[in-house]
Formats: sequence, structure tokens, C-alpha cells
Amino acid sequence: MAKEIERKFLVSGDGWRSEAETGSVFQQAYIVTMDDRSVRVRIADGKSARMTLKVGKSAVVRDEFEYEIPLSDALAMIDLAVGIVIEKTRYRVPFHGFVWEVDVYDGALQGLVIAEVEMRSEDDRPDLPDWIGREVSGERRFSNQYLALDGRPPD
Amino acid sequence: MAKEIERKFLVSGDGWRSEAETGSVFQQAYIVTMDDRSVRVRIADGKSARMTLKVGKSAVVRDEFEYEIPLSDALAMIDLAVGIVIEKTRYRVPFHGFVWEVDVYDGALQGLVIAEVEMRSEDDRPDLPDWIGREVSGERRFSNQYLALDGRPPD
Repeated sequence: MAKEIERKFLVSGDGWRSEAETGSVFQQAYIVTMDDRSVRVRIADGKSARMTLKVGKSAVVRDEFEYEIPLSDALAMIDLAVGIVIEKTRYRVPFHGFVWEVDVYDGALQGLVIAEVEMRSEDDRPDLPDWIGREVSGERRFSNQYLALDGRPPD
Repeated sequence: MAKEIERKFLVSGDGWRSEAETGSVFQQAYIVTMDDRSVRVRIADGKSARMTLKVGKSAVVRDEFEYEIPLSDALAMIDLAVGIVIEKTRYRVPFHGFVWEVDVYDGALQGLVIAEVEMRSEDDRPDLPDWIGREVSGERRFSNQYLALDGRPPD
């Protein structure tokens, strides 16, 4: 088990693109969901797949269990999804000792761009790049789980 | 992905014990549940652990995805369970070309004994041993998911 400790923000503008590493294309879907927990399947670049269980109501810290699974299983799970299949491209953007992940959504969520920064502890205080917009940590409607079930919220 | 094709029965009497192979002790708990699907973790004989996703409303056939996971992950998941932790001993009982699994429940469900027969196809017609009682295939209250959430139903 790992602890997922992260903060999440909307993104304003394209300033991050010049610092971004090559992106990975993710397809991900939710297979079982409850209020405070979910099981997600994610296919990266059409090649590898992982199944992830996340549990926890906290805005910043959640328990996370992640396993590599066969691609064929992931494709079969996606057919059983609750909600839509999320398509997004994830770019890694290093900034002042932290790696930001900028998710550019496609498909039904096109136009949405969200940045997350993964921290080692809740006490970390990453510097915020100037392309960072409003913080949405803990706003569940901006979680991928709720985006898959309810669609894009107003910013 | 596998198809789980099985029928389930109550058990009357101890006639199965003379034919039973050595039992395995299972601890299992449900981590995420919805009406027609669940993720379960199971620890066998305190040693090995599996995480299983089952999806489907059918009485007899369900989609099943199962993965070996680290024992430490399973123990952490059990702490996050919804409902009780089910304790049972499973005995394999061969009968006329099929293997029956007889689950003898312990703990909060002590006294409950359920037999399942796994089939290769829905057309299989396994002979029923004479210690088999009422069929409960498709009675959700006798599924482990509902036993964990709601406790033991009246027979």
C-alpha cells in the first residue's frame, strides 16, 4: 500500500508546455465506486495497464493500492465501467524540485486541464508555477471518479 | 478475465465430511461494493492473498478478475473493509466428476454451511450429492458480499 499525497489545481494558459516532457496517453475508467473509494483501470499508451484501488475522504491523502494487470483484462473491465471512459494526455513538468503532472483531457471532457503535484509528506510546500490556477484539492467534482460519473463541472 | 459459472446450495447434515479433502481457512472482506459488483480480498491459510473483482447480476454466471497481491496489502485492505470480515473453512469434495466446495462459516456467521459447484458451462448438470439442501443460486442474501454487509439470513 502507498499513500497518495497530492494537491490539485486548475491550469491557466499554456506556460507549462515549454517545460513539459513527452506526454503519455491514458484511457481510464471506474469499475466499482463508492462515496469514499473506487477501483479504476488505466491503460497507458495503449500498451500497459494497471488497476488501482483508492480509499479515503481526505482532500490530500488517500490509501492507494496499485497492480499491473494484463491489457486484455483492462479492456474487458473498460467494457464494464460505470460512467464514461476518460481520455487524457499526461505531461510531466518538473518545477523547483517537484514534478507536476498536467492532465489535458480529451473526448467528452475536452477543454479541461488539471495539474497535480505529488508530495512526499503533507508538510511539503511545493512552489506554485505561474501557470497554476485555482486549487481544487478536495473538490470531489474535479476528481477523476466524479468526472467519469458526472461529467465536467463549471470551473 | 474468467467466467465464474457456479450453483450454490445450503447443506443439510455432515454427509460430505467423509469425502472432504483437507480444508483451507479463508478470511475475506469486501472493499468496494455496488449492487451488481464487488472487490473482495481473501487471505488463504494466513499466507497468500488475492484480490478479486466480480461483475454481473446473473444468478449463475459472473465476470471474474483475480490477482495475487502481497499479504501486507491484503491486511491493510481488510482494515478498510465495508461490512464484517468473513471467516470460513473451505473443503473440496469431489462428487461424480465435479468438485464441490463446502464453506463452513465461523465467527459472526457460525452455523452457516454453503456448498458451491463450479461448472465449465451453464449447460453442465452436476449430480447433486444427498447432503445438498435447498438451492440458493441467485439469492443475493446468500452471496458472500451480502453476508458481509447484512449478516446471516434465515434459511
